[in-house]
Amino acid sequence: MLGRTYDNLDCSVARTLEVMGERWTMLVLRDAFLGVKRFDDFQKDLGVARNVLQSRLTRLVDEGVLERVPYQDRPVRHEYRLTEKGLDLWPILVAMLAWGDKHAAPTAGPPLRLVHRDCGGTVSDRRICEGCGVELTVHDVRAVRRREPVPA
Amino acid sequence: MLGRTYDNLDCSVARTLEVMGERWTMLVLRDAFLGVKRFDDFQKDLGVARNVLQSRLTRLVDEGVLERVPYQDRPVRHEYRLTEKGLDLWPILVAMLAWGDKHAAPTAGPPLRLVHRDCGGTVSDRRICEGCGVELTVHDVRAVRRREPVPA
Repeated sequence: MLGRTYDNLDCSVARTLEVMGERWTMLVLRDAFLGVKRFDDFQKDLGVARNVLQSRLTRLVDEGVLERVPYQDRPVRHEYRLTEKGLDLWPILVAMLAWGDKHAAPTAGPPLRLVHRDCGGTVSDRRICEGCGVELTVHDVRAVRRREPVPA
Repeated sequence: MLGRTYDNLDCSVARTLEVMGERWTMLVLRDAFLGVKRFDDFQKDLGVARNVLQSRLTRLVDEGVLERVPYQDRPVRHEYRLTEKGLDLWPILVAMLAWGDKHAAPTAGPPLRLVHRDCGGTVSDRRICEGCGVELTVHDVRAVRRREPVPA
């Protein structure tokens, strides 16, 4: 934990870290971009303690990055959806994915690949389609999980 | 602190967080990209406890993101320089800067601006020069600190 806030470190990087600078928070966001919406699904995927997960989700809702929306009436159940402000974090995740793929990928290769929905082209680290050349937004892209190699 | 490692969260985002997922670490990297190299300069700029700073710098050296290089003989003094692996983190910082500028900038406006050295154009969040259109690398760009407004 930090013993002070970043208010006197007047920089947009520092201010961004105020919102997403905790590792579980980043992994919650990664899952949200992969389509996870419900508490139990975050919990199952991350294996994080429920109280830690709840505090991270609450923080992200307070920051306006996620919104908590009812999806069922009886009993009332909520899910967590990325807001516009949250969706704007996508370039950071893409940049982190690219760095990890280059410098920290497992020997079997990158576990996740981003592809342009329209043409199937690979998404570059500048978020441009390597197939057709267009600039992509989060809505244009889907993540493909690499399959484990099938033994011959 | 996390109670477990990310090894079973097989994803390049998680693996990137293993290296840079701590807030002081990110701010050390931000300073390194702004040209800070010496322990005392990091310490002065961040106001972080010396033992915390030392542990973050040592971690980044161990990860191959920074290298510790002597710059003086008697007495021996070292400075910390970004390696190629460290320089590759630049797109993440640029993406964080763009998000912070949009969603968390102080009312006086973004405190830092990235410009293309050659033409002075603003650097887009895709790291493309808005002046001349070329794709930029970390070596093509400098950061300009916004001056405080001068009272009339």
